[in-house]
Amino acid sequence: MNVTKQKILEVGSQLVRQKGFNKTGLQEILKASGVPKGSFYFYFKSKKHFGLELIDVYSGFFLQEMDRIILDQTKSGLIRLKEFLDFTKTMFAAENFVGGCPLGNLVLEMGDLHADFAEKIGQSFQQMESRFLKCLQDAQQSGEINKTVDIKEAAYFILNSWEGAVVRMKVERSLKPLEILDNFIFNNILS
Amino acid sequence: MNVTKQKILEVGSQLVRQKGFNKTGLQEILKASGVPKGSFYFYFKSKKHFGLELIDVYSGFFLQEMDRIILDQTKSGLIRLKEFLDFTKTMFAAENFVGGCPLGNLVLEMGDLHADFAEKIGQSFQQMESRFLKCLQDAQQSGEINKTVDIKEAAYFILNSWEGAVVRMKVERSLKPLEILDNFIFNNILS
Repeated sequence: MNVTKQKILEVGSQLVRQKGFNKTGLQEILKASGVPKGSFYFYFKSKKHFGLELIDVYSGFFLQEMDRIILDQTKSGLIRLKEFLDFTKTMFAAENFVGGCPLGNLVLEMGDLHADFAEKIGQSFQQMESRFLKCLQDAQQSGEINKTVDIKEAAYFILNSWEGAVVRMKVERSLKPLEILDNFIFNNILS
Repeated sequence: MNVTKQKILEVGSQLVRQKGFNKTGLQEILKASGVPKGSFYFYFKSKKHFGLELIDVYSGFFLQEMDRIILDQTKSGLIRLKEFLDFTKTMFAAENFVGGCPLGNLVLEMGDLHADFAEKIGQSFQQMESRFLKCLQDAQQSGEINKTVDIKEAAYFILNSWEGAVVRMKVERSLKPLEILDNFIFNNILS
């Protein structure tokens, strides 16, 4: 990707994660990235198109970390799932619980206003879910998870409940919602 | 409450639920409610203060429905929980999955920008959770739920996971996330 475009997306993704999409002005993005307005419109047809490309930035980050942790077949499926959930807790705590999941934020802010946002974020959620499913499949094959567990439904439920726990984390500014999620995943859902 | 103030909150709560808080302009609220600017500032010190009062409108709606369904002791605790979850599904389907949970939307949009929003929405979540806990207590006392289930953690988890299912519902424009939540609540979490 072109360096200027990459710079705009990098700076813009941080601003939007901190302030929300509508609250982040174009002028602010230009100023923070040191890019003139003309360049912005050379790379993005509109602010909306810029927003749609942010989805790739955000999901790219999560998918990269997931692939690093969850697809590491030297560890058991459940350990990999636990390590990924722990990774997100460490990250959120380091950020002092500000920001949360940028895809969840963006879909609640923009999903009703532009169906494109909902659709593209839906694809990202499916990609993340497929990583969860991969480690649940390995866990089921190795006998870590009972054969009776519907792991496809479980992967779907875990992703959704994680999003909900992150909403509550932002309210409480604590890891408690994610810790309780872990308890239910490993003691109820997958056992 | 004063009629004019009530009108502003009623009209404003609908606009904000549809468009988000930042995207809803003051002019738009004034126009839709037929109220002059001076009156708005007579009742609300600022748009932020108006937003904080919207939280009472939104949580008031949910708490009223919860009290109607969940506190009806003529039915068993689990039936009341199921009926409340079904009520939300019927409502969201009738709205064609637009809007979702206004408290979840508002905290993801405003919680990082103003701690007041996060704190007040946190109180609303606790009030809703206490309704869930009430029917879980009744269900546990009557033997519908096993004595070993930690119903306080379960009430907390159910509320958070419901918020997450609503995020996914907005992405998929379907009831599937809420239906799968029901499966896990009644077949895993509470059994």
